[in-house]
Amino acid sequence: MTETRPAAARRCLAVILAAGGGVRMKSEVPKVLHAIGGRSLLWHVVSAVRDSGADAVAVVVGPDRDDVAAEARRVDPQVRIHVQRERLGTAHAVLAARDSLAEGFDDVLVVFADTPLVMPETFRRMREALARGAAVAPLAFEAADPTGYGRMLVRDGQLVAIREHKDADEAERRVRLCNAGLMALDGKGALELLEGIGNANAQREYYLTDAVEEARRRGLSAVALVAPESEVMGVNDRVQLAQAEAILQGRLRTAAMRGGATLVAPETVFLSVDTRLGRDVLVEPHVVFGPGVTVDDGAVIHSFSHLEGAHVGPGATVGPFGRLRPGADLGPKAKIGNFVEVKSAQIGAGAKVSHLTYLGDASVGANANIGAGTITCNYDGFRKFRTEIGDNAFIGSNSALVAPVRVGAGAFVGSGSVITDDVPADALALGRGRQVVKEGWAVSFRERQPKKARD
Amino acid sequence: MTETRPAAARRCLAVILAAGGGVRMKSEVPKVLHAIGGRSLLWHVVSAVRDSGADAVAVVVGPDRDDVAAEARRVDPQVRIHVQRERLGTAHAVLAARDSLAEGFDDVLVVFADTPLVMPETFRRMREALARGAAVAPLAFEAADPTGYGRMLVRDGQLVAIREHKDADEAERRVRLCNAGLMALDGKGALELLEGIGNANAQREYYLTDAVEEARRRGLSAVALVAPESEVMGVNDRVQLAQAEAILQGRLRTAAMRGGATLVAPETVFLSVDTRLGRDVLVEPHVVFGPGVTVDDGAVIHSFSHLEGAHVGPGATVGPFGRLRPGADLGPKAKIGNFVEVKSAQIGAGAKVSHLTYLGDASVGANANIGAGTITCNYDGFRKFRTEIGDNAFIGSNSALVAPVRVGAGAFVGSGSVITDDVPADALALGRGRQVVKEGWAVSFRERQPKKARD
Amino acid sequence: MTETRPAAARRCLAVILAAGGGVRMKSEVPKVLHAIGGRSLLWHVVSAVRDSGADAVAVVVGPDRDDVAAEARRVDPQVRIHVQRERLGTAHAVLAARDSLAEGFDDVLVVFADTPLVMPETFRRMREALARGAAVAPLAFEAADPTGYGRMLVRDGQLVAIREHKDADEAERRVRLCNAGLMALDGKGALELLEGIGNANAQREYYLTDAVEEARRRGLSAVALVAPESEVMGVNDRVQLAQAEAILQGRLRTAAMRGGATLVAPETVFLSVDTRLGRDVLVEPHVVFGPGVTVDDGAVIHSFSHLEGAHVGPGATVGPFGRLRPGADLGPKAKIGNFVEVKSAQIGAGAKVSHLTYLGDASVGANANIGAGTITCNYDGFRKFRTEIGDNAFIGSNSALVAPVRVGAGAFVGSGSVITDDVPADALALGRGRQVVKEGWAVSFRERQPKKARD
Repeated sequence: MTETRPAAARRCLAVILAAGGGVRMKSEVPKVLHAIGGRSLLWHVVSAVRDSGADAVAVVVGPDRDDVAAEARRVDPQVRIHVQRERLGTAHAVLAARDSLAEGFDDVLVVFADTPLVMPETFRRMREALARGAAVAPLAFEAADPTGYGRMLVRDGQLVAIREHKDADEAERRVRLCNAGLMALDGKGALELLEGIGNANAQREYYLTDAVEEARRRGLSAVALVAPESEVMGVNDRVQLAQAEAILQGRLRTAAMRGGATLVAPETVFLSVDTRLGRDVLVEPHVVFGPGVTVDDGAVIHSFSHLEGAHVGPGATVGPFGRLRPGADLGPKAKIGNFVEVKSAQIGAGAKVSHLTYLGDASVGANANIGAGTITCNYDGFRKFRTEIGDNAFIGSNSALVAPVRVGAGAFVGSGSVITDDVPADALALGRGRQVVKEGWAVSFRERQPKKARD
Repeated sequence: MTETRPAAARRCLAVILAAGGGVRMKSEVPKVLHAIGGRSLLWHVVSAVRDSGADAVAVVVGPDRDDVAAEARRVDPQVRIHVQRERLGTAHAVLAARDSLAEGFDDVLVVFADTPLVMPETFRRMREALARGAAVAPLAFEAADPTGYGRMLVRDGQLVAIREHKDADEAERRVRLCNAGLMALDGKGALELLEGIGNANAQREYYLTDAVEEARRRGLSAVALVAPESEVMGVNDRVQLAQAEAILQGRLRTAAMRGGATLVAPETVFLSVDTRLGRDVLVEPHVVFGPGVTVDDGAVIHSFSHLEGAHVGPGATVGPFGRLRPGADLGPKAKIGNFVEVKSAQIGAGAKVSHLTYLGDASVGANANIGAGTITCNYDGFRKFRTEIGDNAFIGSNSALVAPVRVGAGAFVGSGSVITDDVPADALALGRGRQVVKEGWAVSFRERQPKKARD
Repeated sequence: MTETRPAAARRCLAVILAAGGGVRMKSEVPKVLHAIGGRSLLWHVVSAVRDSGADAVAVVVGPDRDDVAAEARRVDPQVRIHVQRERLGTAHAVLAARDSLAEGFDDVLVVFADTPLVMPETFRRMREALARGAAVAPLAFEAADPTGYGRMLVRDGQLVAIREHKDADEAERRVRLCNAGLMALDGKGALELLEGIGNANAQREYYLTDAVEEARRRGLSAVALVAPESEVMGVNDRVQLAQAEAILQGRLRTAAMRGGATLVAPETVFLSVDTRLGRDVLVEPHVVFGPGVTVDDGAVIHSFSHLEGAHVGPGATVGPFGRLRPGADLGPKAKIGNFVEVKSAQIGAGAKVSHLTYLGDASVGANANIGAGTITCNYDGFRKFRTEIGDNAFIGSNSALVAPVRVGAGAFVGSGSVITDDVPADALALGRGRQVVKEGWAVSFRERQPKKARD
């Protein structure tokens, strides 16, 4: 029996296997860089092991996979990258992190970068099994349909073996407790145990699951920890990717509702892992939150709205058909209406931007009113310029504000104007053609049309 | 045994308990004012008991809950409001309506304002049990998972007791018939029965469920009525609020389809309780109907459309990306296209408003054509004005119509015009700048750019 | 026993029964012309039998149903139309195709136009049963709830009888293998067998199911083929129509994902039967593909986009809130942004159309930039005209391009312009009013407002 320390005091290395091929994804992009909830599968796994309290994270990548290594470092700059040069099985992959393993951590967690839904709490439970004396503690799940999975054979609380489906007898096949693949290993003996695993099998591969048998042979303890099937699902193709997304979205939606936001139809609302919804926020059906959105208390996000990188102030309203792009920042009770796009713009308290408008690189003062069809012309083909609109200003409908330009506080811009020069506070600015009328023109125009077109 | 009259002749009081706290909602708004299908939970319950034929409705509210009282009166001005000053249990809450109970109704229905999905027919079935001689008739349901619910112990057709989960023995726990909380009471004995209920329990509360035991003690009959679990679900948090919304939407969608409307993907269409869809209406995926929408026969609502307070005439089409706001009224075969908003506006038969347009406070004549990017400038910062467009008029694209303004029948407005004065019938109106061209300007402009910006 | 030939050599007639009433649809449109996946039920059935290798297709329609006949011919001009004048049961309906049956096909498939989800492979399996010697081979399914369905009574691999639910004894009712209605018949004996069916039943109708009994009486072989319940569902009302749509969408989505496209939330994406998504295409939640869309490798379709009759080039992006109408053709890496509609327009490689724009009957050159609020004024009330924009051109925001008009390569159009004349390459064109400012105007305007409106 391994000498043990209290779980809290034990130092942990997480080894994340990220070298898998992912052929069934049919993608130019490595499998573990595909995303759910707006973040890569790898991101989720690195984050979860870190949140579980792992002291060091080693990621095993395939050769020439700088993109995978870079993504891992993006989440955690301290991550150690190990390269698996040949693919000779999961135990072989773990041994690619030999240098890290040799440092003598108390706990070693072996996890898979394509199994993105395991909760930090589950990793902690696995480590606790080590603290209680287990040498190996694989994760298991009760399979709705166990066909094809390795069965966890448990006797008197000890895991006796992991039996592959094809090798299982009839009684063993009735076992529904299946191997999830992940495993906690006592750090002191991990390297020796892993090196003891052979490849005497049909595929000539070194299987991590054999660590159980290897531990039993040495008289060490093996226990299975059970997690929900939804938590341990792996992503091997895009159908499973969508299933993982659905499970993740379910978690995010439930957390948002438990936190005090109303999602009228949660199944139609898509959240990012960092979406923050305040209390008494109302989200109508069909809303998409990209990364980086914070919605304050009492705000309303109407249907068919799309937000990313945006802040919605308390009591503000967005949509229906509102689009907030990065840098959109709405003050308290501001209103963004339908077919309105806001990018890198501050909208003052109580300001109204109700329809068919583009505000980019702009600031809008408190209680200003931006008429329908207003466009900030912020780009000249080379550079972006800012538009500044003062408090209580009124921009008439269908106006073009050619940046850089300022409209002063309380100023009016007449409908249909092109504004190229600054407008002083409280002034009226007009920039439009004068109306002319040609009486009876339409009669002769219609007569000129080919008969067929008139019918 | 109570003296009975035919069910139809019996007068009924419904007591709606609406004083609950709703802490798990985490909301500034009382739980029963949260909405499903666009109406408050309380609205649904008041409506259902009224639709079931209740002669009087008493609502028990907490102290200082004028908002709840006002919502109840909004549904039914005759509703009686009773205030429960202290929270001492459900039987105590019912007794807050003592003055109403003392009037001697034949039937008393006790229902919960946070249980919004019970059907009028179910209330009628409960009352029929009273007419057949029952003194108390609680509502029950077959629970998919009965854990935690009170079990209905039935012997020889009589309800013997409601056993709380924690007090139930092993055999009783196997009973899946559970207490839904709602109860019908014979009106003649109700007050006496309720006053007989004691608070000799751990929480020192007066429980309505004890009415069963109390009735049995007096030799009176108790029977359980069974309803589907989906009908009796209570709303205690926002996850359950969303579940209730989903059940309600399921009912509304099925009714719309049975009535002859096609919902291509009903799970993505959201209806209000008052949405009226005619025969051979086609609703594409992803459509939201707010309150007050009527769609006539043969109309098509394309995807990503949002309608409220609107009327869509026969054969008219909306969307995709159409928004009809209150007062939008489309004539037969009118067409509202993408990124178009209509508010307080009548659109004539066969008129076309195909793209990127805002029509507010306007009327559009039959067969008129409103070009892309047209904006009615109906607001000057203080007041709203009307725009009137005649039959067969043609509004060129990207025009601004500055209200108040009229465009006569058959008139043309040139593209890009700002129209500030009335346009006579059959006239052409233009209001735009004259085009000037500066040859070669772009070459020198590009040369003036910093090199970096050009790359 | 029938003389048999190898399955591949056998000639097959498919008889599609399309004369049913469809009263429960509550529609002016015949049931079989209602659509799923953007195609009529009849279309799906004709396509599936043709894809299964049927050599001839006969469609039995009701009297005066030229619309049904026309739809059948639209799928397959060679289809034979037979009219069933009276409705005397399914066997009678098949005999309406007597002339076709009499031609002596080897295999006869009898299928229903309101059962749109049967796969070609299933039809092939039915025919293989004939090739192996069966005289009749009805299709069966394991019913989740068999109540109401006819039960398939099988003994020693032979179908003994199809027992109607109401005639079944207790043991027979426990059978979950149910009759799907479809049937393969050995062509040589089919006519004789069908004519042998009588109408000695309560409804006085000739039932196709009696062909089994009729075959057994003659000592012929009958076998049941089993298909999934989802495949054999019939459409009798609009709820079932929606269920069929959901099953079809599930198939289309899975196929798209297996082919290498990511559907972030497949349950919110609606595909047509001919939608083609390339490898590493990313489709965000809430997207609708109408008929005729091809999306090339690596393109991204953002949320709330609606595409039909469109081609999206490699690496191009659409939306959110993008609408591509028929004839939209995006070059490589072109970008269509929010609230943009494209119709009959070619968008060059790398061109950007980012916001609030309508491009109709237009061509946009490579790397051109179309500013927010740009409108091509392509329609004068009678005819459509084209707009041509050259490579690297820059159209300033809120411009109206009055077609027919050309903007040359590298030219600039100033924001807010109305362009009515061609713009030479590299020129700057402006067409807008000059700005005038009235200082202090807003102060006096506000003072003129009625006090109430100012509050």
